Amino acid sequence: MDLRPALVPPGGRIGILGGGQLGRMLALAAARLGLSSHIYTDSADGPAQEVAAFTQIGRFDDTAALSQFAARCDVVTYEFENIPLAAIDAVLATRVVYPPIAALGVAQDRLSEKRFMQDLGLATAPFADVASQADLMAAIAAIGLPAILKTRRFGYDGKGQIVLRTLDDAASAFDQLGSVPAILEGMVPLAGELSVIAARSRDGQFASYDCPANVHRAGILHRSTVPSGMPLAVLDNARTMAERIAAALDYVGVIGVELFLHQDGRLLINEIAPRVHNSGHWTLDACLISQFENHVRAIAGWPLGSTRRHSDAEMVNLLGDDVADWHKLAGGYDTAVHLYGKRGAKPGRKMGHFTLIRPIS
Amino acid sequence: MDLRPALVPPGGRIGILGGGQLGRMLALAAARLGLSSHIYTDSADGPAQEVAAFTQIGRFDDTAALSQFAARCDVVTYEFENIPLAAIDAVLATRVVYPPIAALGVAQDRLSEKRFMQDLGLATAPFADVASQADLMAAIAAIGLPAILKTRRFGYDGKGQIVLRTLDDAASAFDQLGSVPAILEGMVPLAGELSVIAARSRDGQFASYDCPANVHRAGILHRSTVPSGMPLAVLDNARTMAERIAAALDYVGVIGVELFLHQDGRLLINEIAPRVHNSGHWTLDACLISQFENHVRAIAGWPLGSTRRHSDAEMVNLLGDDVADWHKLAGGYDTAVHLYGKRGAKPGRKMGHFTLIRPIS
Repeated sequence: MDLRPALVPPGGRIGILGGGQLGRMLALAAARLGLSSHIYTDSADGPAQEVAAFTQIGRFDDTAALSQFAARCDVVTYEFENIPLAAIDAVLATRVVYPPIAALGVAQDRLSEKRFMQDLGLATAPFADVASQADLMAAIAAIGLPAILKTRRFGYDGKGQIVLRTLDDAASAFDQLGSVPAILEGMVPLAGELSVIAARSRDGQFASYDCPANVHRAGILHRSTVPSGMPLAVLDNARTMAERIAAALDYVGVIGVELFLHQDGRLLINEIAPRVHNSGHWTLDACLISQFENHVRAIAGWPLGSTRRHSDAEMVNLLGDDVADWHKLAGGYDTAVHLYGKRGAKPGRKMGHFTLIRPIS
Repeated sequence: MDLRPALVPPGGRIGILGGGQLGRMLALAAARLGLSSHIYTDSADGPAQEVAAFTQIGRFDDTAALSQFAARCDVVTYEFENIPLAAIDAVLATRVVYPPIAALGVAQDRLSEKRFMQDLGLATAPFADVASQADLMAAIAAIGLPAILKTRRFGYDGKGQIVLRTLDDAASAFDQLGSVPAILEGMVPLAGELSVIAARSRDGQFASYDCPANVHRAGILHRSTVPSGMPLAVLDNARTMAERIAAALDYVGVIGVELFLHQDGRLLINEIAPRVHNSGHWTLDACLISQFENHVRAIAGWPLGSTRRHSDAEMVNLLGDDVADWHKLAGGYDTAVHLYGKRGAKPGRKMGHFTLIRPIS
């Protein structure tokens, strides 16, 4: 059976596994193109379903339900990377899933991810496999401090990480993280952080947006700014690295590649996200075709759209109670407010974002 | 009972009467702001409902159903102007409706509309009331030929109009239009057509987009272009006229004002649309805040958003089989394709549009 899907024409159905804000913005982008979005989610009141043609509530270990869902769709994608690979396998029995499961596998395990970059000859922060407290002590001896102990799996937004500054910090760190497989990552002196948001089509066309400079707070993205102010050579290098990663994964869809700019000028791959990315949200307002639309175009087999930036932009996340400022923000000069329709503003929860645009500088 | 609605906060519900493409694009804009859209439509498979949180199918003469619908919403709007005023009255019993019913009343009757403009001292093409064939002959004697006989009500996209070039054309024209109340409108020599797309907030703030130059084909909008290439004095004058109209109607929401530029340099009001307007679709791609979002902001009591244009733009409608070119268009340079999810491409039916943007010239 040839599972390579036909071009999905207007009126076709995009299946989205996950019903969060990324799913919501993907569904909104699909609607522009006359495509229907079908959401599979384990949450009864997620942000995406209000704007989708159809929503199926189910667990991600219910392979029968996933398979039934997939049969309704022309092509299937996912909007969060901690989705079980078995769920993707269930869908793959009847439909193609983009981005490819190999990309998801690499992104779900920090150790595989680092080794994948090593195999491609791309630099990362120094790292070591940590399966025990003894491993951790050996890793510290090799890498030095400060360093960050990170669970290999299921980390996001700074969760599953402990910064180690002294040997005292290290004493109970492995236990604190739950004694699960981890890696120790050397903390490198940063000149800045940036990301590449890029789309790759089914036929290997690659198009990247201008790289934003990113600022995190407590492990969560706070602000993305374009232009980044970083040297053009750095930005070109970052894009080339992202293109090599995407090509090696035979990637289809939008990928987010987070990078560190070392104070010595080197670019290090931090991590990849096999999906649309928070640091690309400004593309909704500063580009004709957003990352969300280009993801939909890519997985549906459409031509990629322009990634040209028509404006300078600064995107700021609204976490938790930040969203209480919505009225003031909405009245801001040249400011677009995006709210995700979430009911409870728990601390750190991504409730929305806003983008300020200015004419190209 | 004070029916002036409270500010509609994120999570609030926007009721939209009508489920066509304008309702669809309004619902997509509301979703950006974290607002829920509820659609009331008499069609089981309209474009809007796929992207709305809730859809109620009902007739526009079912006042009980309309009233029940209104009770679910925080504020109600409409997306087509041929909606019966009685339907608006049914909603007004429990909820505020924006734009105000007075604007709808004026826009629904070409004779009222023309007299309204006269009362404001705004120029229109010469016109006369036509209630019979005898009236028509008298009107021709007064206005001259060529002229256009138009039904007073329910005309749109060139429907309900007959161009009269000779007295022979006039012989059966009144019968041809169904012997319904009509007006005769003098056909003025045009230097061009333009429109004002503007938003007015609940507290009277007025913000207009750059005026597009419009080209019609067979009575249906074909292309809108910004900048229009018309003299700045003309554009300023057009905006001032639109602002006076909106103020006189105590308008809330987005209004479309279509104007003729006479070859003698005068601006004549053609007609108004008390809603988002086809000639403002380019604002989705060339402005940070589209006409759709500004309509939602206005009716919800939010601050108006920027109407600044960041790009030059040309919007072209896709009518009927034009939509078959979607793949080629999607691959066009700096082109955004918008498709409305309609199933049947009947001749003349608005299936979508595309916008080409360029850096500001």
